[in-house]
Amino acid sequence: MSDRVAITPPHRYRNNDKAIGVGNAFWDMSEQNGLAGIVAELRDGVLTTPDGHEFVNFTCCSYLDLDSHPKVIEGAVAALRRYGVLDHCIPRSRVQIPALLELESSLGELFGADVVSAISAGVASAGLLPLLASGHLGNGTRPLMVFDKNCHVSMAGAKPTCADETEVVVCEHHDLGFLEDMCKRYQRVCYVIDGADSLGGYAPVLELAELQERYGMQVYYDDSHSVSAYGERGIGYVRTHCPVLDERTITVATLNKAFGTSGAAILLDGYDKKTLRVIERFAGALCYSQPVNTAAVGASLASAQIHRTDELTALQHRMHANIELFDRFVATAQSGTTYPIRVVPMSDETVIAAGRQVFEAGFYVSPVFFPIVARGTAGLRVMLRAGQTEEQVRALCAVLVEVGAQPAAAPLEVVR
Amino acid sequence: MSDRVAITPPHRYRNNDKAIGVGNAFWDMSEQNGLAGIVAELRDGVLTTPDGHEFVNFTCCSYLDLDSHPKVIEGAVAALRRYGVLDHCIPRSRVQIPALLELESSLGELFGADVVSAISAGVASAGLLPLLASGHLGNGTRPLMVFDKNCHVSMAGAKPTCADETEVVVCEHHDLGFLEDMCKRYQRVCYVIDGADSLGGYAPVLELAELQERYGMQVYYDDSHSVSAYGERGIGYVRTHCPVLDERTITVATLNKAFGTSGAAILLDGYDKKTLRVIERFAGALCYSQPVNTAAVGASLASAQIHRTDELTALQHRMHANIELFDRFVATAQSGTTYPIRVVPMSDETVIAAGRQVFEAGFYVSPVFFPIVARGTAGLRVMLRAGQTEEQVRALCAVLVEVGAQPAAAPLEVVR
Repeated sequence: MSDRVAITPPHRYRNNDKAIGVGNAFWDMSEQNGLAGIVAELRDGVLTTPDGHEFVNFTCCSYLDLDSHPKVIEGAVAALRRYGVLDHCIPRSRVQIPALLELESSLGELFGADVVSAISAGVASAGLLPLLASGHLGNGTRPLMVFDKNCHVSMAGAKPTCADETEVVVCEHHDLGFLEDMCKRYQRVCYVIDGADSLGGYAPVLELAELQERYGMQVYYDDSHSVSAYGERGIGYVRTHCPVLDERTITVATLNKAFGTSGAAILLDGYDKKTLRVIERFAGALCYSQPVNTAAVGASLASAQIHRTDELTALQHRMHANIELFDRFVATAQSGTTYPIRVVPMSDETVIAAGRQVFEAGFYVSPVFFPIVARGTAGLRVMLRAGQTEEQVRALCAVLVEVGAQPAAAPLEVVR
Repeated sequence: MSDRVAITPPHRYRNNDKAIGVGNAFWDMSEQNGLAGIVAELRDGVLTTPDGHEFVNFTCCSYLDLDSHPKVIEGAVAALRRYGVLDHCIPRSRVQIPALLELESSLGELFGADVVSAISAGVASAGLLPLLASGHLGNGTRPLMVFDKNCHVSMAGAKPTCADETEVVVCEHHDLGFLEDMCKRYQRVCYVIDGADSLGGYAPVLELAELQERYGMQVYYDDSHSVSAYGERGIGYVRTHCPVLDERTITVATLNKAFGTSGAAILLDGYDKKTLRVIERFAGALCYSQPVNTAAVGASLASAQIHRTDELTALQHRMHANIELFDRFVATAQSGTTYPIRVVPMSDETVIAAGRQVFEAGFYVSPVFFPIVARGTAGLRVMLRAGQTEEQVRALCAVLVEVGAQPAAAPLEVVR
């Protein structure tokens, strides 16, 4: 028994021992303090725990509250009734009912792109990144894959797989100089990055476009946090600003956040039918017999329809009014930006107690602290939505200041 | 430009050039002959193409036709109305509405296991296999990961990721001798295999259990093709026969095939709450904010309820009657087994034309041929379901024999 081989892992791209060691400490601490593992019923925008505690969720990514829009729910019901199945189980490359095609056609018109659907942005990235790595999604040249250090784990998780198809490196966050160096050195480079970060902030889309134009660099964006919340008809930050809309730019976006439904959209330009077939046939789980279900298709068609009307603009305005209201009272690094996420700085020692007090006052904000983020950068993550009332935002700000948040420099209310 | 670095890929575990080269030839040929890329409306079990051609799908994995059961559809509608959202977008490790817990509690009772839900079996495997590789899902010992040569691509795709956490090898199909050798050599072995193959056949569950008992081997089963279709209350082949129900056996199963809904169930035994938390927090996409949506939860609760009644047994009997009826007329290697899949042998030269004739006669069966399978092993894949009528099965068998299928040795009809 004792002479049997014990294995030493390579740990080139990942290390579960380390990730779980670090992450579990964070999660256990959060859960012990009642700030994780919460179960609650949702009604009219208010969550109620089994012991009767009511709170408003200020860490929900449904930025426009389309998830509970009656037309979205009824769209889901209508599609279930129309198709009579959640799915007709067979790979779509063989036989498909028209559900996904209707969804992709509607989203294609909305985003002005060729759209392929996926059950999640994570599934889309896990399927597409290896095809980018091997040059099959691109111009045929196998690129150096450069993963941004901060890119979401749903993209970072594809590193070992991509590394079997090409070379993989990691760069510092938004390191344009490094990218240009790599572009000079390699025949092709593909940069993997969030369009909008989960802790606030956008990708340098215009600067990246210069590298795309100069060197043919590809960029793979996950724009999940900005779609619907940003831009005309909610087309998101990347497609609003990126001038390079051809095979060099690929964008995925969840439909589960501001869009308010389930699934994800892959936004493509300039790829021929042959390449779209390669995606359908070889992009990992995109080829299996578990697509976006018809309920999510129906909900998404209804949400897309709302995106085409003034109602979307009105919802975006309400979300922005809440963001501005928040910025009038609480100082954050994100203050003054269009981004719906704010990280309220707290000390490593006080962040958990502060989160608890805020929760007891009736608001959930998620604490981030060491070892999840660096020491000295702890904070409470706040997400503003269209559906929060002015009273709720004001009350949250008051309790945040009470528990140690820095008040905004010159609150307009006082100046007035 | 020309002196810039071109990359030579390692291709240790995968090779897109090869897979796409081989696969595209197969798919293009299928599509050019009208046997792939089919779009059709489904009504009352019959599919109709835009040009009016009607056909019955004999390659659909909804073996019990629960996908179109009125109670399943109304279960989806009821859950949408009850929760008022498809999802409340935030990682469940922070805050969750009770939907997933209700689903997991119901499935847990049904399967007699601890159940964790996932949006698909592929997502479950992509999340769990790296945790098995690092020993975090198991007894803490990092195992040698042995992937069966034939295991589904949703599991095989995790090889590069697992290889960064431990050693990975591939074995011949169901090679018990190789597994025993590895068990003698390594402190721990984890074998990755389908419980029920997509081309017909079951895993050697009892023989594997002997290795599990003798050497502590772990087995990771994907039992997607047998859940609901096999066993009392549809608990599937693995859980019906496997005597080792503790940390050494992990089974995933889609809810998208015979179960008739969307999503997947991870079936676990003997893991403590701490390990279940590790899954919730670190098993890849299981931790992101895109869970099984409420429509699928409601449909699954309704399907689980049907599984607890005599109706399930009746549906299984109807499926088996169709399997037996088929076997009375057409000879296949699977004849006489309980398995709902049959591969009707055809020559490489005739399989496509045969598939076309069958389709023209009103039945879809999917052709498999070189380069997808070895030369000389081509065939038409047939899936029997509870919902196909006796007339449809008889008519399919007649046309199969017409296009070259070998008739069963002694058709009972003739003998009678």
